[in-house]
Amino acid sequence: MKILVANLGSTSFKYRLFDMETETQLARGGIDRIGQPGAESSCSVEIGSHKSERTQVVPDHASAVQICLEQLTDSETGCISSVEEVAAIGFKAVFAGKLSGVRKVDNELLEMMDELSDVAPAHNPPYVKAMRELQAAFPEMPLVAALETGFHESIPQANRLYAVPFEWQEKYSIQRWGFHGASHRFIGQRTAELLGRDDLKIVSCHLGGSSSLCAQKGGQSMATTMGMTPQTGLPQNNRVGDFDPFALPLLMRKSGKSLEELLSELGKSGGLLGLSGGLSSDIRDLEEAAGNNHEGAQRALDVYVANIRHYIGAYMAVLEGIDALVFTGGIGENSQYIRQHVCAGFDWAGLKLDESINQTARDEGSLTAAESKVQIWIVPTNEELVVARQTESLITK
Amino acid sequence: MKILVANLGSTSFKYRLFDMETETQLARGGIDRIGQPGAESSCSVEIGSHKSERTQVVPDHASAVQICLEQLTDSETGCISSVEEVAAIGFKAVFAGKLSGVRKVDNELLEMMDELSDVAPAHNPPYVKAMRELQAAFPEMPLVAALETGFHESIPQANRLYAVPFEWQEKYSIQRWGFHGASHRFIGQRTAELLGRDDLKIVSCHLGGSSSLCAQKGGQSMATTMGMTPQTGLPQNNRVGDFDPFALPLLMRKSGKSLEELLSELGKSGGLLGLSGGLSSDIRDLEEAAGNNHEGAQRALDVYVANIRHYIGAYMAVLEGIDALVFTGGIGENSQYIRQHVCAGFDWAGLKLDESINQTARDEGSLTAAESKVQIWIVPTNEELVVARQTESLITK
Repeated sequence: MKILVANLGSTSFKYRLFDMETETQLARGGIDRIGQPGAESSCSVEIGSHKSERTQVVPDHASAVQICLEQLTDSETGCISSVEEVAAIGFKAVFAGKLSGVRKVDNELLEMMDELSDVAPAHNPPYVKAMRELQAAFPEMPLVAALETGFHESIPQANRLYAVPFEWQEKYSIQRWGFHGASHRFIGQRTAELLGRDDLKIVSCHLGGSSSLCAQKGGQSMATTMGMTPQTGLPQNNRVGDFDPFALPLLMRKSGKSLEELLSELGKSGGLLGLSGGLSSDIRDLEEAAGNNHEGAQRALDVYVANIRHYIGAYMAVLEGIDALVFTGGIGENSQYIRQHVCAGFDWAGLKLDESINQTARDEGSLTAAESKVQIWIVPTNEELVVARQTESLITK
Repeated sequence: MKILVANLGSTSFKYRLFDMETETQLARGGIDRIGQPGAESSCSVEIGSHKSERTQVVPDHASAVQICLEQLTDSETGCISSVEEVAAIGFKAVFAGKLSGVRKVDNELLEMMDELSDVAPAHNPPYVKAMRELQAAFPEMPLVAALETGFHESIPQANRLYAVPFEWQEKYSIQRWGFHGASHRFIGQRTAELLGRDDLKIVSCHLGGSSSLCAQKGGQSMATTMGMTPQTGLPQNNRVGDFDPFALPLLMRKSGKSLEELLSELGKSGGLLGLSGGLSSDIRDLEEAAGNNHEGAQRALDVYVANIRHYIGAYMAVLEGIDALVFTGGIGENSQYIRQHVCAGFDWAGLKLDESINQTARDEGSLTAAESKVQIWIVPTNEELVVARQTESLITK
């Protein structure tokens, strides 16, 4: 069975095609500038070692998928013989409140995602729009949403609830939902394979443009850093992370800005970007600038590291000690600086990094010092494979 | 030297009188219903084992202090011969932003406290009002404010900063200030005395109506749970603690309430009260109800314990392992249930409670199991003595 996994932005469509018999990726591609007046889109596809690209106007996401399917079925360069071979399209959808888990895309889901757009303003609107277009354009194609919150349904109530008036939880679903579910699920499964144990207690560190940590026990999420919305938890590239809402009235009074303006700034000008004094939200820029004694860059790195360490300690308490600490994501896989500073001074917990291996490691592998009781690994994530697996499982059950 | 330490509420005045040569408490007392139209106040004082009380109309805090001084200098039942023996009045004031530490009460301080009333709405307004009255009524008496934020000035930048646009920190002092400074300072000093070491790494758990944790190294605060305002951090009696500010727009839209109304509810109907479904904010009520299988009460206890454990783990990471965990405050000193559940499952960190001692312990003493590497203690706090020491130190330097 072939599953297409779609990753949607407001003006972009990226995809991977998997053969689920072997869990291999047959193709990947992307189309940009969708629906941009007067713009031509680059429509690229990579099949095996062969890359091809064409340029044309793409008015909407349905047209983008149509082009993708044409490229995949091209008689010379394609990898499948007909569109019918694609059994379903899976989406890593972000938030639909109580409609979590894995489910067919239907009107109930789309209405709920639409209704909750302010929780995930960067993700829900383009997904709803594109999925509606695809429903209309491909009425026979099963569309499946694997919600990012699904993996966190196992989080115990004590780690899930905010101390709000309880009716808010019941009436408005105000609770820690957690996100990055596909990535954390993959890390849990892959780490269990690598270490040959299915009862592992691990802290999964997904560190990238968007960052979160997850405490897992036997592959089940027990706690995670993102909360009601993906804006809370760790500081992100340009998003604030944990913040005191009771500071908002003072900020409104002193700055003369509205609540909406302040939240927008916290979501766009905060995080590493804000801490660095506006220098950059990219950890590579910050590492370089900090190396040249840029005070703001060093401050951003210090706060990022301190927040990750805070949550690792907290999750050691949640899990009552851990077996493994796993790094993934663009920063987790590539920044030896962040890994080194995150792991420093954890001897008391039996965790020690092999600093020599850490300096050059980028691929899947262990960074564990010989004397460390806790395993430390890099495990590159594969969110799309998780979505493909979940999509296959739903349509075949 | 005698120092009077005042604890002010909007309609109450409580005090203790210390002899600083011996650091002994000479007297304690309180006056209620201040400025309540038509109400008579109870003015009680306890000197040694002698308690006395009178009832009269008390129009304002200056009158309350006048009555207190009359009672303390009473020729038959008093403990000092004249008002001149009182060298200063010290106040455990809450928040004046950058005017932190210990300082004489002057107009600059009062204006700043007034300006920042929305950070500490329950505390700043009555303090400002009463301190102005006392300035006018006792122009010769030194009035000293020991700010609750002062102890936390040593918190490193990495643990202090929110990932907000950096100018907010510079222009509006948006950062984790921390509170409960007098209590955490006392616990640090007293624990160092008890264990005979001044380089201790401890987590001080002030658990009471208002609750916070503090990570300390060598008596210096390195991190604390309260943030920009005392509303954040651990869930409190009726206050929410950590919460996702990005949930507010959704709550406003769904509930039809204003930001002010929602924050007010989070500050008054949240915490243990909210979690328990409105049952009670008092841990004693919740323990009793949970014993009778009240679901909401058990939920409130579970979330409270989980949050405390979260921060203990995080602070172990901050301090790179700890020497001692110390409980204080009404709950910390009296709830064997909370202590037991907070300490459970920390064997991996070398922390183990003596459950038998814990069951009956209420006074200063160790609860450490024989095999525990980390010391676990109850240390009753004495915030007023800290304020008296700081007041003496300021006026004599």
